[in-house]
Amino acid sequence: MRDLKNVNDAISFDIKKDRLFSATHEEILKGYTTDIYFLRAQEILRHLNLESTPVVAEIFPRREGIFAGLPEILYLLKDKNVKIWAIPEGESFVPYDTVVRIEGPYNEFGVFETPILGILASSSAWATATKECKEAAGDSPLLCFASRHVHPAVAPVLERSAKIGGADGLSCVLGAKIAGIVPKGTVPHSLKVAKAYDEIVEDNTPKIILVDTFKDEAEESLRVANLLKDRLSGIRLDTPGERGGVTPGLVREVRARLDQAGFSYVRIYVSGGLTPERIRILKEAGAFAFGVGSYISSFSPIDMTMDLKEVNGKKIAKRGRIPGKIDNPKLIQVK
Amino acid sequence: MRDLKNVNDAISFDIKKDRLFSATHEEILKGYTTDIYFLRAQEILRHLNLESTPVVAEIFPRREGIFAGLPEILYLLKDKNVKIWAIPEGESFVPYDTVVRIEGPYNEFGVFETPILGILASSSAWATATKECKEAAGDSPLLCFASRHVHPAVAPVLERSAKIGGADGLSCVLGAKIAGIVPKGTVPHSLKVAKAYDEIVEDNTPKIILVDTFKDEAEESLRVANLLKDRLSGIRLDTPGERGGVTPGLVREVRARLDQAGFSYVRIYVSGGLTPERIRILKEAGAFAFGVGSYISSFSPIDMTMDLKEVNGKKIAKRGRIPGKIDNPKLIQVK
Amino acid sequence: MRDLKNVNDAISFDIKKDRLFSATHEEILKGYTTDIYFLRAQEILRHLNLESTPVVAEIFPRREGIFAGLPEILYLLKDKNVKIWAIPEGESFVPYDTVVRIEGPYNEFGVFETPILGILASSSAWATATKECKEAAGDSPLLCFASRHVHPAVAPVLERSAKIGGADGLSCVLGAKIAGIVPKGTVPHSLKVAKAYDEIVEDNTPKIILVDTFKDEAEESLRVANLLKDRLSGIRLDTPGERGGVTPGLVREVRARLDQAGFSYVRIYVSGGLTPERIRILKEAGAFAFGVGSYISSFSPIDMTMDLKEVNGKKIAKRGRIPGKIDNPKLIQVK
Amino acid sequence: MRDLKNVNDAISFDIKKDRLFSATHEEILKGYTTDIYFLRAQEILRHLNLESTPVVAEIFPRREGIFAGLPEILYLLKDKNVKIWAIPEGESFVPYDTVVRIEGPYNEFGVFETPILGILASSSAWATATKECKEAAGDSPLLCFASRHVHPAVAPVLERSAKIGGADGLSCVLGAKIAGIVPKGTVPHSLKVAKAYDEIVEDNTPKIILVDTFKDEAEESLRVANLLKDRLSGIRLDTPGERGGVTPGLVREVRARLDQAGFSYVRIYVSGGLTPERIRILKEAGAFAFGVGSYISSFSPIDMTMDLKEVNGKKIAKRGRIPGKIDNPKLIQVK
Amino acid sequence: MRDLKNVNDAISFDIKKDRLFSATHEEILKGYTTDIYFLRAQEILRHLNLESTPVVAEIFPRREGIFAGLPEILYLLKDKNVKIWAIPEGESFVPYDTVVRIEGPYNEFGVFETPILGILASSSAWATATKECKEAAGDSPLLCFASRHVHPAVAPVLERSAKIGGADGLSCVLGAKIAGIVPKGTVPHSLKVAKAYDEIVEDNTPKIILVDTFKDEAEESLRVANLLKDRLSGIRLDTPGERGGVTPGLVREVRARLDQAGFSYVRIYVSGGLTPERIRILKEAGAFAFGVGSYISSFSPIDMTMDLKEVNGKKIAKRGRIPGKIDNPKLIQVK
Amino acid sequence: MRDLKNVNDAISFDIKKDRLFSATHEEILKGYTTDIYFLRAQEILRHLNLESTPVVAEIFPRREGIFAGLPEILYLLKDKNVKIWAIPEGESFVPYDTVVRIEGPYNEFGVFETPILGILASSSAWATATKECKEAAGDSPLLCFASRHVHPAVAPVLERSAKIGGADGLSCVLGAKIAGIVPKGTVPHSLKVAKAYDEIVEDNTPKIILVDTFKDEAEESLRVANLLKDRLSGIRLDTPGERGGVTPGLVREVRARLDQAGFSYVRIYVSGGLTPERIRILKEAGAFAFGVGSYISSFSPIDMTMDLKEVNGKKIAKRGRIPGKIDNPKLIQVK
Repeated sequence: MRDLKNVNDAISFDIKKDRLFSATHEEILKGYTTDIYFLRAQEILRHLNLESTPVVAEIFPRREGIFAGLPEILYLLKDKNVKIWAIPEGESFVPYDTVVRIEGPYNEFGVFETPILGILASSSAWATATKECKEAAGDSPLLCFASRHVHPAVAPVLERSAKIGGADGLSCVLGAKIAGIVPKGTVPHSLKVAKAYDEIVEDNTPKIILVDTFKDEAEESLRVANLLKDRLSGIRLDTPGERGGVTPGLVREVRARLDQAGFSYVRIYVSGGLTPERIRILKEAGAFAFGVGSYISSFSPIDMTMDLKEVNGKKIAKRGRIPGKIDNPKLIQVK
Repeated sequence: MRDLKNVNDAISFDIKKDRLFSATHEEILKGYTTDIYFLRAQEILRHLNLESTPVVAEIFPRREGIFAGLPEILYLLKDKNVKIWAIPEGESFVPYDTVVRIEGPYNEFGVFETPILGILASSSAWATATKECKEAAGDSPLLCFASRHVHPAVAPVLERSAKIGGADGLSCVLGAKIAGIVPKGTVPHSLKVAKAYDEIVEDNTPKIILVDTFKDEAEESLRVANLLKDRLSGIRLDTPGERGGVTPGLVREVRARLDQAGFSYVRIYVSGGLTPERIRILKEAGAFAFGVGSYISSFSPIDMTMDLKEVNGKKIAKRGRIPGKIDNPKLIQVK
Repeated sequence: MRDLKNVNDAISFDIKKDRLFSATHEEILKGYTTDIYFLRAQEILRHLNLESTPVVAEIFPRREGIFAGLPEILYLLKDKNVKIWAIPEGESFVPYDTVVRIEGPYNEFGVFETPILGILASSSAWATATKECKEAAGDSPLLCFASRHVHPAVAPVLERSAKIGGADGLSCVLGAKIAGIVPKGTVPHSLKVAKAYDEIVEDNTPKIILVDTFKDEAEESLRVANLLKDRLSGIRLDTPGERGGVTPGLVREVRARLDQAGFSYVRIYVSGGLTPERIRILKEAGAFAFGVGSYISSFSPIDMTMDLKEVNGKKIAKRGRIPGKIDNPKLIQVK
Repeated sequence: MRDLKNVNDAISFDIKKDRLFSATHEEILKGYTTDIYFLRAQEILRHLNLESTPVVAEIFPRREGIFAGLPEILYLLKDKNVKIWAIPEGESFVPYDTVVRIEGPYNEFGVFETPILGILASSSAWATATKECKEAAGDSPLLCFASRHVHPAVAPVLERSAKIGGADGLSCVLGAKIAGIVPKGTVPHSLKVAKAYDEIVEDNTPKIILVDTFKDEAEESLRVANLLKDRLSGIRLDTPGERGGVTPGLVREVRARLDQAGFSYVRIYVSGGLTPERIRILKEAGAFAFGVGSYISSFSPIDMTMDLKEVNGKKIAKRGRIPGKIDNPKLIQVK
Repeated sequence: MRDLKNVNDAISFDIKKDRLFSATHEEILKGYTTDIYFLRAQEILRHLNLESTPVVAEIFPRREGIFAGLPEILYLLKDKNVKIWAIPEGESFVPYDTVVRIEGPYNEFGVFETPILGILASSSAWATATKECKEAAGDSPLLCFASRHVHPAVAPVLERSAKIGGADGLSCVLGAKIAGIVPKGTVPHSLKVAKAYDEIVEDNTPKIILVDTFKDEAEESLRVANLLKDRLSGIRLDTPGERGGVTPGLVREVRARLDQAGFSYVRIYVSGGLTPERIRILKEAGAFAFGVGSYISSFSPIDMTMDLKEVNGKKIAKRGRIPGKIDNPKLIQVK
Repeated sequence: MRDLKNVNDAISFDIKKDRLFSATHEEILKGYTTDIYFLRAQEILRHLNLESTPVVAEIFPRREGIFAGLPEILYLLKDKNVKIWAIPEGESFVPYDTVVRIEGPYNEFGVFETPILGILASSSAWATATKECKEAAGDSPLLCFASRHVHPAVAPVLERSAKIGGADGLSCVLGAKIAGIVPKGTVPHSLKVAKAYDEIVEDNTPKIILVDTFKDEAEESLRVANLLKDRLSGIRLDTPGERGGVTPGLVREVRARLDQAGFSYVRIYVSGGLTPERIRILKEAGAFAFGVGSYISSFSPIDMTMDLKEVNGKKIAKRGRIPGKIDNPKLIQVK
């Protein structure tokens, strides 16, 4: 597979028909996920002998959030002749902040404008959503359960971004590996399953059992606690919306019943449609930890825009933008 | 890389530290994007000698939409011992419709629950968003400009889903290839650039020039039309929000000025923050085609849920669900 | 106890200190629940030798509704020298309709203005609230469970008004007796209780068991159905608000599970915070009958106003009202 | 009339057909206002030889308010073998506070669950509504004019509850007697009536004349002040809604005209659709006292729930509630 | 006073310090109410020898309405060398309709751009507001009482515009004269005043008496009707807002009382804060005629814009407008 | 033209048919802009020999605002035998404040009630609207561009009132003269025009050029700055609504581009649909001065009411008002 250089390449290459639709790493690195627009632009520059003209490009977001995705950008451009400045991974930004600046010949990176913006827009959105939840959870553990809502190709990207945003636990195997932590989960429950689980797993693992499955949550919590005793670390409530979801009243009741039965060490994990506001309410009611899924996965990408700010040392700008570099004291040279 | 079979595998494997964070095709196919939860579940089943128990699982959505992503599901399970029924790609669904049914031993597909749901949730959301826009556009061309808002690993998935939802043009090179069409785009404009473009590109290509760049849109439209004459197919308006965006008044004015100057064959393409409602308004004002980006990319994934409905021929269900298969006349056996 | 005639009587009479606070029938009939205002008015008329002047008084409501309470009015005035016209019990009215007209000397009924207006305001409100629920329930049985929200002195008045408004079942013993029907209820549930109930009650009684008590509603419904078999007529869902209340999803699920287990003859009764709108939704989901409480008991009294319209044959009116009788074709002479 | 003990009693007793529909004191004390549900429950307990099992029951409200009705509860249970704790009459409560606790054999009080809850729900609602008005009125007199909106059987209960909630004056003769105060009212006005009233009533009574009747309020206020001179204590404005109601402008004008004419000692009483908010506005405008009716009578009953918390010394609870007694430091043993 | 020709004139002329601030007719005709902007523009044109260049100017509104003010425009330009087209006085327009087109040398009318736009903006607004009221009043008389809310210099302009918009009666002496009708009004009322009025005015005049002044409106209506008998044509209700304004209930009551007393020929005129919506409600309640003031006077001027559409036969336009004449079939040549 | 004295005069006088419709100064001074109502009233008083009865009349507003128009009132009444008190021109008032008090025989000023109220209502509204804008603008210049929205007869009244409310610049020639300042404006732009203007006008005048006309605002601002250099004082942005209006982003961009090009001394004037809120936003974005039009011209007249408060030394009032003078410490005797 050769580097994508011009419009003709973009039309004439072949792919297998029977495949996953997500792009492979090679396809991304060779430029095949670009918009055709940028190939046209490069062809014209070449025609005008301008392809090596030095330029300064800056990227800015249109909403506030938490910056994530930089390592993938650096990996994409690792062999290119450009200098790069960026704000640190996990740093906050406000609209119009310069978050990345790239200097070098335009043809070194022009074809990567689409993937660079896409990586930053997605990763920053997921980190930002997680940060909002973590702020609501405070010192309580926040677990990311969002991978089932996104394409598996980006599930590890999402989980790693959630880690940047403050998630304490990740459920996706590859995501946790990339983020450098051990994946965490719970176990579906029936008495038989819980017993088997108890036999399989060495005792020092924290066992958390999901009790939404077949019976009343309070009754089941007590049954599983009586079965596993001090080998039970927590139960997870995930009452489906059809049954009213997890309410503060349910958390309070299960907490009281566990306490009355001597299981005050058993922690209550909650999940199911959590938002920062519901996290605050359920924490107040006694929940210990929070599993968040769709709040993170459905957070809108934070649109990023790349503007040329200098060409050949001369300040320029499109209509509606201010010509020349816009400084941001948080920027650090990273390449 | 070996198939992911148990919790220990999930902890002990190694990956390169310096890499893109998106999952490779091999990682997805070997099960590395699963939630750890499903590995635990499979381990317990194995311990209970139940791993080969035949089950029936069904997938249903929680919001209405357009179904997309089936070919990837079939590719994922192509070597597995399961039967599959599904509604056709591009078909509409309402909440709680059974959209996929899988029959076979649970361990044949359990580890793929996370990626299967993620593929369907994302792809169906993108197809649904595009459909809404296409319904607004009617017989006018709808172009998908969304790839810059998502991670490049899924940009082709998004574009292919947009095609399923009715998009007439795609901008991402790999996305268009997978969808089986030629990618489409415009060219940034300055007189010099337009002239170069005119020289490079063979005359029978439809040339569409973006006129948002440096000058008044009406004035620039006329200049580029005068330069390219009948080699100009259309101009694209993409006035930035800082300058008020593309308004119906602007479309009407540019249309009138082009007509008065004899360029009634030059079509007006519009883009920038379009929604179904704005598409309707701008179409009314005279726009010819519509480039949509963030409406598609920020459409919330349509949560999909997989439930076990039969185990060993016996109807079951979690609390809040109805036991046994739920029929849907749109289901067709696909494997 | 003598009839209350003047202000002095109203101050000098004695009552037991240790008693219920509600008025006895005798106290009401002797005039002791009047406002002191009307005693003053009568004293003045007597002083002016006007106490026997013939007058025409009319009562009108300020909101629309269903008329109820007439038999108590007639009982109150049964020995008085007045003629009375009224719209029929259960008839609808709109604001400013004349619903009752009384002709005779003012001192025959003046002291009863307070109790007459109070009876009509309360009874009509309760009948109206019930009517709204019954219209939502259509041909499904509507049961009144409101007596626990009102003072026991008026519980039978409320239940009888609910009957006028369309209730099919009443729960209060005295209320049902006054309304001329057999009281209806359910039984709290635990397996032991259900078994005992089954032994006590002769088989041809419809047995309806409340399943909100200790376990998951679906599971319990099946257990009680398996225990009582065809001696079970229905189960009642009354899930408390702390657990999300009775949802359409819960009704659908319990219905499906009962049907799958061969108990399609077991009906689903629902209660708990029902309103006309929720009745419509739950009926759609498969509920058979509806127990309504606080919607009826908390319905605001429909203010009734009594105006003098003629004195000694001469039309009069207070400011803001139109002098003279206001006819209503629904009026019928009832005394 | 014998005590109501079982379902058969509830069906077979007789009543007079021609009567008031409200329950007599005897009917209430013998249990005839219970829900049939509680008779069934008791029958089953008897069948299981559990009728004398000691239980602990607690009552809690679902909205915040002012507690009222305790003396009637104690009167109902005066001959029963139970211990009772309660918060003081007039005390405030918040949702889920334990307001009453009863200990003893269930069959001693089970049949009274309906009337006990009904008394507390109604009385506390009326006291709470009055309290809200009194807080708005501050040190200004608050008069309860609500008896004409409720059934005469409970008019004295309402008025006594209003006294608990802070009302300074009551209009219902029996209500005032039960509350231990002298009833208060005004007199309808025409010059002739006012003159007669002046002749009848001894001079040291505070005379308050209603001036809404036939003429302009300001003009009439002056005429009646000129007639009665220092024998006039106040005038009452009660302008009907058809004429715009009592507005702050009207109060200010009448106050100014009375002052200019030397009647600054004549106070302005207002009534007609008052709410706490309107009381605040009219007080600001110069009103002296406030007559409130429908705000009190239409206040929704504050639902009360009785839960069994211990049976035979063992903690229990229905689903959704926390097992065992829930302490409240405001509770005092009252029996 | 000489014609205003250039910036210097605009600064050097003198006026009396002690005067009314409104412009005299001469000042308007000589150009002294122009914006200085237009003088500058003309000076520059003269400098460029372009002052006599033929141009086409068009005026369009930005909101919909009723066209009024044309005769004053024609009077302003009566001696100028221009051709004029306009839509007819009283015609309706929608936004962007061409309502006036002027052709001729720019210096013939440029200095009048400000007064021309001002006349049309004010006059059309007043006509439009009146039209809305008249549509609500239908066949009932609509009287304009707005002159007291505007400067006397434009009171006749307002009244004449109201006539264009459909007003049946005008109250301002000069306004009525200009509109060619006899001014109409009512008389303030006290018995003494009404009697005097009856003596002064010849009997065949329709006498309408304002009854808001000192007493209850219903009582006063009857007194004045009894005094003037068939010499009374109508009474006017104008209850001040401090007393609740004129309500439908008041109209109904006064109508009923007049009818009952044999004065069904006496008509009810209403005024005070009327809007189209209140006119509809009060007409329904029985009001005969409507006096409208602030709805007309406070109607926002309908902004008018004058654009040059051709210069020397060449189509032009400012940014945001379409070049060249925009035809409107309602245009008629008027000069 | 004689003074207007009675109803007959009002009907029998003649005017030219071909004229402006605004009232001349003489017509106003002779009373021809009165409502016919006041002539009737005066005729009746004369008939009753009451025309010379001394009265006290007071004027109060119904909304809060800034007082303006007093000099015209004094000019109107300069030869009348009355004493006048008023609050100072430019002073603030709240609803019901006495702003003017007139003492003297009613026939001296009765016929002027309509014009007096109209002058104050209009002038105070315009002053108040301007004040709100000036408060938003703070120390930035505020220019009144409203004359094109009102009839030329009152354009100078509006502008003079705007000056009272705080406007720093006026555009109407006669308005500025009356307000005692030099009129200010800008110049429409094209390179040719700007050059001509530069040649005509002596260099020490501040030149402000409108750049909305034909090209992109930023580009044009730079072109005109390069042409006029330090003879350019400011540019005015007035982007039409069809093109999105003047946005904060546009102001920021033009400011930055001017600064980068060395034109930091060129100020940005903005206009077009400004309101106090938009002034605050655009000032924050870097605008220097603000041209306001329709916010001032469309501000609703502040209704003024004149009440008789004493007749022949006796306090009186209409219903709804308080009899006698109402003092206001801000009142000063002005005649």
